[in-house]
Amino acid sequence: MSERIEVESDSHSYPVLLENGLRYSFYHLLEDILPDHTKLMIIADETAASYYLEDLLASFPDSAKPVVTILPSGETSKSMVQYERLLTECLQEGLDRKSVIAALGGGVAGDIAGFTAATYMRGIRYVQIPTTLLAHDSSVGGKTGINHPLGKNMIGAFHAPSAVLYDPEMLISLPEKEWRSGFAEVIKHAFISSPEFFVWLQNHVHKLSSVDPSTLEKMLKKSIETKVAVVQEDEREAGVRAHLNFGHTLGHAIEAELGYGKTTHGEAVAVGMIFAMRLSEKFYGIKLPIEETVKYLEKLGYYLKLQKQVNAEKLLFIMKRDKKASGGSMRFVLLPELGRAELVDIREEMVLDLLEEEELT
Amino acid sequence: MSERIEVESDSHSYPVLLENGLRYSFYHLLEDILPDHTKLMIIADETAASYYLEDLLASFPDSAKPVVTILPSGETSKSMVQYERLLTECLQEGLDRKSVIAALGGGVAGDIAGFTAATYMRGIRYVQIPTTLLAHDSSVGGKTGINHPLGKNMIGAFHAPSAVLYDPEMLISLPEKEWRSGFAEVIKHAFISSPEFFVWLQNHVHKLSSVDPSTLEKMLKKSIETKVAVVQEDEREAGVRAHLNFGHTLGHAIEAELGYGKTTHGEAVAVGMIFAMRLSEKFYGIKLPIEETVKYLEKLGYYLKLQKQVNAEKLLFIMKRDKKASGGSMRFVLLPELGRAELVDIREEMVLDLLEEEELT
Ligand SMILES: NC(=O)c1ccc[n+]([C@@H]2O[C@H](COP(=O)([O-])OP(=O)(O)OC[C@H]3O[C@@H](n4cnc5c(N)ncnc54)[C@H](O)[C@@H]3O)[C@@H](O)[C@H]2O)c1
Ligand SMILES: NC(=O)c1ccc[n+]([C@@H]2O[C@H](COP(=O)([O-])OP(=O)(O)OC[C@H]3O[C@@H](n4cnc5c(N)ncnc54)[C@H](O)[C@@H]3O)[C@@H](O)[C@H]2O)c1
Repeated sequence: MSERIEVESDSHSYPVLLENGLRYSFYHLLEDILPDHTKLMIIADETAASYYLEDLLASFPDSAKPVVTILPSGETSKSMVQYERLLTECLQEGLDRKSVIAALGGGVAGDIAGFTAATYMRGIRYVQIPTTLLAHDSSVGGKTGINHPLGKNMIGAFHAPSAVLYDPEMLISLPEKEWRSGFAEVIKHAFISSPEFFVWLQNHVHKLSSVDPSTLEKMLKKSIETKVAVVQEDEREAGVRAHLNFGHTLGHAIEAELGYGKTTHGEAVAVGMIFAMRLSEKFYGIKLPIEETVKYLEKLGYYLKLQKQVNAEKLLFIMKRDKKASGGSMRFVLLPELGRAELVDIREEMVLDLLEEEELT
Repeated sequence: MSERIEVESDSHSYPVLLENGLRYSFYHLLEDILPDHTKLMIIADETAASYYLEDLLASFPDSAKPVVTILPSGETSKSMVQYERLLTECLQEGLDRKSVIAALGGGVAGDIAGFTAATYMRGIRYVQIPTTLLAHDSSVGGKTGINHPLGKNMIGAFHAPSAVLYDPEMLISLPEKEWRSGFAEVIKHAFISSPEFFVWLQNHVHKLSSVDPSTLEKMLKKSIETKVAVVQEDEREAGVRAHLNFGHTLGHAIEAELGYGKTTHGEAVAVGMIFAMRLSEKFYGIKLPIEETVKYLEKLGYYLKLQKQVNAEKLLFIMKRDKKASGGSMRFVLLPELGRAELVDIREEMVLDLLEEEELT
C-alpha cells in the first residue's frame, strides 16, 4: 500500500508519501522529486540513524553518496550550538543554493534541519524523513525552529519541505512512550476535526506499540490529512492554525513547570486536552465524552494525573505569559462540539477555578 | 520635499519614505504604518545612535518609549554572537508576535536586525531606518542575514521590511569613505538600468560628501527605484535579481582576499565594475565608456588599483568557488550595452587572461 497527499504551501506544493519500505528507495524518490539538486546532506537523529541510516544509504549509487551528519538524540539538540555546527558543516561540505538537506528522525531532527535549511544561504530545500509517530505531525506544515534557554521554539522560520517521505515501518523500533507522545496528536486531530475518526480510533487502536500495519497507515493518513487541511488554510498561523494548539496551552505549561523531558509532550498534551474539554463543557454548557476519553487514554497507558503535581496558580501564570488576551482574559482553543475547534477569550477565574478543582480530585 | 515609493513583496507591500527630518516624526509614522503593533525594539548601530537616537526617541510620548539595544559598529557585529544576544533581549523584553523591530544604522544593523526579526518567533515585522548611503540599497528588498567565519552573508533569510524610513539628513555625519562605499551601488544601478542616470550623476555629483540635499534626494530616489524594479520582478533571486551582482563577483573576491575591512565594499565593487565592463567589451565585442568611468570614479576619490595587489590565479579561484557554471565556465553579470545587464557563462581563460593583464598594467 502507498498513499500520496499533496500539500499546497505559500511558495510551492509538496507530496507527503506514506509507504512501508520507502526508505529503501530514498535515492530514487529524491531524484524524482528534486531532479535538479546538487549535494545532499542527511541530518540524522542518532537513534534513528542506528536503525535506518544504512537502509537509506544503500539506495544510493556509489557515485552519489550523500554527506551525513549525526544529531545527538533528545530535545537538547534543538539548540543554538547544534544549529551553528550544522551551518558550519554545510559550508565545509560545500552545499550550494541547489543543495538539499534531508532530516532523518523525529520532530527534533526535523525542526532543526528545517531551520538550518531555511537559513542556509537564505534558504535551501529540504525533505523530511520522519521516524517517530509524532513526526507525522511535525514534518508537515513548514514550522521549523530551535529552542532558546528562555523558551521552546522561540527561534525559527516558516519553511515548507519539498517532500515528506514517511516509512511507517520505521516506527517498529519506537519505545512505547514515544508512541504515546505521538498518538496524543492523532487524537487531537480527531477531536478538532472528526468525531467519526475518534470512534474509529477507539475501535481499532487498542495497544499502541502493536498497531497492525494497515491500521497504522489508515490512522496516519487520516491524521495527516487533518493537519494538511488546517495548514493549507492558514500556513502562517494567522487564524485556524491556532486550533492545532488544542490541549497545548495547559500541556506546555505542565511541561515547562515539570521541566522538559520529565514528562513526554504527548502525556502533557493528553492532560491538556482533557482539561480543555472540561473547560469547553463549562464555557458552552455542553456535554463532551470526557469520561470515555479518559478511560481510553488510560487503557493506552497515559498517566493523566500529572496536573495534581503542579500548583494551579503557577500553571495559570505560565499560561497567561503566552496566551493573555485583553483585560483579565486568556485565549484558549475549546470545542463547541466534538470535531470542531474555536479560539475563545475566557476569563482567568474560570480557568483557575477548574485548575484548582483538578488539583483536589 | 518628500518621496514615497511603494514596494510589492511576495507577502505584503511596503513604503519607502524619503524625507529630510523624517526621524523627528518616527513615532507617528510607525503608528500610522503599523497601528496594531505591540512593543517596539530599536536595534541601533553605535555610531548612528550617537548622532540620531535622541532625535528618534524624542518623537515618542513618555508612555510609549521603545526598548533600545546598541550594536557595536562594524561588519564584525553581523555575527552569531550578536544574533543570539539580540534574540535573548527580545525574549527578556517580552517581545511578542505583534512586536516590531526597528533597525537604525547602515547595512550591518539592517541585515542583522532583519534576520533577528525574520527568525524571532518564526518571524515578526521590522522597519528599516537607514543611516548610510549604502543602506539605500541594503534596506530595500528583504535580504537579511549575518556572516559565518567561512563566508559573508551565508546565514540569512528573505524577510521584507514593513517600511523603509529614510532621512537623508542623517548622511551628513557620514565619513567620506562611507559615501564612496554607497555611491558604488548608485553607479551600479545606473549601469544596469539607465545610461541617462549615469550622465546625470556625472553632471550633478562632483564631490561625494557635499552633495546638495535636492541632488541627494533625486539620486536616492532614482537609485532606489532601480533596485525596487529589480526585486519586485524577482524577490528570491531566481533570475534578474542576480543583475544586482554587477561588479560584485570580482569585488567580493578582492574583499575576501585582502581581508574584510581592509578595503571598503564600494571600492572593491568599483574595481569589479570596471573589470566587468572590460570583460563585456571582450565578450560582446563592443565599446563601453570605461575610461570616462575610471576618470569619474578617480575624481570622486576611488582608488582603483587594488587589483594589482592581488594574484590573478587566487582571485579566479575565489570567484570560481561562488560562481562556477558547468565545465570550464563561470557565471558573470555583463553589460551587452550600457544600461542593460545579462547573466552569462564565460570561459575561465577569458577571465584569467584579463585578470593577468590588469595585474601588469
Ligand atoms: N514543527 C512542528 O510543526 C512541530 C509540531 C509538533 C512538535 N514539534 C517538535 O517536535 C519535537 C518532538 O518530536 P519527537 O517526539 O519526534 O521527538 P524526537 O525527535 O526527540 O524523538 C523522540 C525520541 O525517539 C527517538 N527515535 C526517533 N526515531 C526513532 C525510531 N524510529 N526508533 C526508535 N527511536 C527513535 C529519538 O532519538 C528520541 O529519543 C519537539 O521538539 C517539538 O517542539 C514540532
Ligand atoms: N541586505 C542587502 O540587500 C545588502 C545589500 C548590500 C550590502 N549589504 C550589507 O550591508 C553591509 C554594509 O553596509 P554599510 O556600508 O551601511 O555598513 P555599516 O552598517 O557598517 O556602516 C558603515 C559605517 O558607518 C557608520 N555609520 C552608520 N551611519 C552613520 C552615520 N549616519 N554617520 C556616521 N557614521 C555612520 C557605521 O557605524 C559603520 O562604521 C554589509 O554587511 C553588506 O553585506 C546588504
